Amino acid sequence: MKLTVLGCYAATPRTINNTTAQVLELGNQLFLIDCGEGTQLQLRKLKIRFSKINHIFISHLHGDHFFGLPGLVATFRLLGRKNPLHIYGPKGIKEAVTLLLKLGDSWTNYPLHFYELESKQPELIYEDKHLSVHTIPLDHRVYTNGYLFREKPHPRRINKEKVAQYPLDKFTFNQLKEGRDVETRDGRIIANKELTMEPKHSESYAFCSDTLYDESIANQLSKVDVLYHESTFLSTEEELAFKTKHSTAEQAAKIASKAKVSHLILGHYSTRYGDINAFKNEAEAYFHSVHLAEDGKEFEF
Amino acid sequence: MKLTVLGCYAATPRTINNTTAQVLELGNQLFLIDCGEGTQLQLRKLKIRFSKINHIFISHLHGDHFFGLPGLVATFRLLGRKNPLHIYGPKGIKEAVTLLLKLGDSWTNYPLHFYELESKQPELIYEDKHLSVHTIPLDHRVYTNGYLFREKPHPRRINKEKVAQYPLDKFTFNQLKEGRDVETRDGRIIANKELTMEPKHSESYAFCSDTLYDESIANQLSKVDVLYHESTFLSTEEELAFKTKHSTAEQAAKIASKAKVSHLILGHYSTRYGDINAFKNEAEAYFHSVHLAEDGKEFEF
Repeated sequence: MKLTVLGCYAATPRTINNTTAQVLELGNQLFLIDCGEGTQLQLRKLKIRFSKINHIFISHLHGDHFFGLPGLVATFRLLGRKNPLHIYGPKGIKEAVTLLLKLGDSWTNYPLHFYELESKQPELIYEDKHLSVHTIPLDHRVYTNGYLFREKPHPRRINKEKVAQYPLDKFTFNQLKEGRDVETRDGRIIANKELTMEPKHSESYAFCSDTLYDESIANQLSKVDVLYHESTFLSTEEELAFKTKHSTAEQAAKIASKAKVSHLILGHYSTRYGDINAFKNEAEAYFHSVHLAEDGKEFEF
Repeated sequence: MKLTVLGCYAATPRTINNTTAQVLELGNQLFLIDCGEGTQLQLRKLKIRFSKINHIFISHLHGDHFFGLPGLVATFRLLGRKNPLHIYGPKGIKEAVTLLLKLGDSWTNYPLHFYELESKQPELIYEDKHLSVHTIPLDHRVYTNGYLFREKPHPRRINKEKVAQYPLDKFTFNQLKEGRDVETRDGRIIANKELTMEPKHSESYAFCSDTLYDESIANQLSKVDVLYHESTFLSTEEELAFKTKHSTAEQAAKIASKAKVSHLILGHYSTRYGDINAFKNEAEAYFHSVHLAEDGKEFEF
């Protein structure tokens, strides 16, 4: 699992601060999460292949999370894209993107599918043989979802030494990978655990931005490997965070702690702070593994 | 008159190539012309004061000329703008910008006025005591206008030495500036030309992008000081220019020559060409004063 942060600042793009966008590489796919203005430039700078992105997840329709989307959709066309593109986001996103394309009389030459979200309950919105994506309903000034990516269980790993000790047909190997007991050619039943090892860990990533501090989301985030949680403010601005429906670094860390995640990544910093290390310092009083998102930074877990 | 080119490339923003946007400083105002994605970043990089921009002119609704507009309008709000903002562009521009703001539940806290254009004839769309702006109807794949900025005639300059030779009342000075003859206190009529010099030159700037080669626009551009004319292609791609309703460097130079302008600036280059000097070389065979737009370049005339 690899996460590339294209931008992680709040409000408005600046010369050195990009607004929210990130690319998650998981299950042999690249998923784009949010798409602030200038995202396509960041994709180019970081040499991420446009053609590998087939699914885009937009958390909410504030400009700093989606004003780069119409341009990216148009650029895909200019690059001769043929593969379908799937866009998930709040109701209204389809009208917005299609209106801008229609005004330019430039419909896409590739299939473009929208999945508009309105539910306030978590829902399964994407699934393939490797992973699933659920919404994480958040509490912001407009309708907002985070997204939870979970790899499906990997097959159990066959213990080659043990397997060699029994007369087994090849087809039984798939049964072993699925966790089933198998029968040898001479009729004996061998317990799965005798012949296999625990599967490779199934990875999970949760993206939560933008949101008011809401402990109740911790249940859904239980034990995910990596949680990206917004921390627009420090605790000194807790009132402002409440008023604008954002979180502080302390609050993000408390969610991480309550959900018992493995790692917390902070981001969506207000540009009022000069040094983002203050966010890490504040969060580390409440959680053990705190990382700072930075524009262009790659995380591998 | 000062022109700052924020971006001058066609099609899609790249790491080092910004799409169309420029700032014209004329008559004590800053006018923003076109607003491709990333324009607000270019404004920041080039240290142009956002608050000095009160009028934005959009040529047409292709993404590379207006996808930066919603973000700029939203950023003005975050910067606490109070002054009205006036946006001129093709019919549909109001619906596009207001829909994006509505979806983010973030209306502006400053007055926002749209002037939607549909006429295929040149029309006066802006006027103040210093200058006027007319549309220049162009022929592109969607409804498109260039914009012609013309300073109004400056007052005639008073020849102080000559004026000192006559008994004149102070109020006659304004009459002299307006070109009128004046009467001395002892009843003589003095011809204006005796007491004044030619006024300061009134400057003019024409922006023409995107457009098919169309000689007929030369009439409206007659003798402007500076013409920016798109040259998306070189003559080697003349057929492609025709098909996509763009111009070549040669064609831009022919318009400049026919209109007898003083200077031609080329821009809106396709990124297929490595070296933009080829555009200058091609145009110089047809016109004497050819300049190349470049991202971040300032022209003072």
